[in-house]
Amino acid sequence: MKVAIVIFDKFTDVDLWLMWDLLNRVRIEDWEVRILGEKEFHLSTTNIEVKTHGKLEEANKADAVLFISGYGTRDRIADENWVGKFKLNPEKQIIGSICSGALILAKLGLLNGKTATTYPTTKTALESFGIEVVEKPFIAHGNIGTAGGCLAQQYLIGWVIENLVNKDWADLVIKAVQPVGEGLFFDDAPNLAKLYAAPTKAKTV
Amino acid sequence: MKVAIVIFDKFTDVDLWLMWDLLNRVRIEDWEVRILGEKEFHLSTTNIEVKTHGKLEEANKADAVLFISGYGTRDRIADENWVGKFKLNPEKQIIGSICSGALILAKLGLLNGKTATTYPTTKTALESFGIEVVEKPFIAHGNIGTAGGCLAQQYLIGWVIENLVNKDWADLVIKAVQPVGEGLFFDDAPNLAKLYAAPTKAKTV
Repeated sequence: MKVAIVIFDKFTDVDLWLMWDLLNRVRIEDWEVRILGEKEFHLSTTNIEVKTHGKLEEANKADAVLFISGYGTRDRIADENWVGKFKLNPEKQIIGSICSGALILAKLGLLNGKTATTYPTTKTALESFGIEVVEKPFIAHGNIGTAGGCLAQQYLIGWVIENLVNKDWADLVIKAVQPVGEGLFFDDAPNLAKLYAAPTKAKTV
Repeated sequence: MKVAIVIFDKFTDVDLWLMWDLLNRVRIEDWEVRILGEKEFHLSTTNIEVKTHGKLEEANKADAVLFISGYGTRDRIADENWVGKFKLNPEKQIIGSICSGALILAKLGLLNGKTATTYPTTKTALESFGIEVVEKPFIAHGNIGTAGGCLAQQYLIGWVIENLVNKDWADLVIKAVQPVGEGLFFDDAPNLAKLYAAPTKAKTV
């Protein structure tokens, strides 16, 4: 299973690292998470330099492709060369976005006729694609999911893991980052050990 | 105002980047967030290389010092040279931790006689310092705060910003990352613009 996270210059830091961290807690064999970009390094909105693991074209062969957010999304959807790198297949691939990443899904035509969610400051831009934007943290239609508000990555990534692995792994990974006393409890310690174990065969926790 | 985030090898990715992202949303003059470590680069538990902005000793002059989490905390508290770099003053500095970062506060003697919280798998280790560990997402005693569970960083960082700036900024920053429809709403868009504006004088939003 390969999960691709697409980044670009001026991305929102937590939109990359929360999903990266969650996805890297899955411990099944052949599970791989890769950060893709058009350059060897990309700079976040706060000027943090992040090394990419591969080129954008890799996304076309991934089992899941996730588009993150940030000021940079506006530049990216205006760059036809960048947009043209993606030949995604929503019949075979799980495709998702957080916040303004939905603009990229819209530009790729993946949200046509669907409802979607995004960050409040991106609502008008997403509507300009003719998409009905709904005030929800996460909306999925088949293999396409959009999330709005950075911490709604929990719902997006839970959905990705449930689809690619199973619900037990999704629930365990999301539980593992909840605040103590609010979804995560001291009695959960033995279960959390599974997140630190060696990878197991897929479809089992 | 200077906020120091202390990192080390084998840190938990989201523990650095969620607080980094939140803290960098504050737009007041002379607000500075710095990542400190003993090396020029540190590696996260998922092998992400992160450049530090300064040495550990800088923490001793910061207005707030935050210790993050990860497997690496066990190695750090066993390294007397590393621990000895810190000469923190809880009378003058805000000092906080997320998850196993509490072990460092304990090692520094900052939790003596106080209750604290941490990650479920670190509860026993923290108790071995004679500290009463309570199943809460965030516990503050004066200038010292501990948070447990990655997403409890919201409470920790809200508390830091409220103490160093004011409650309006704390509330706005934390609101800005909530899931849409669950704490963040499309009508919030005009308020969010303040997070992208040029820095203003402290103590005002």
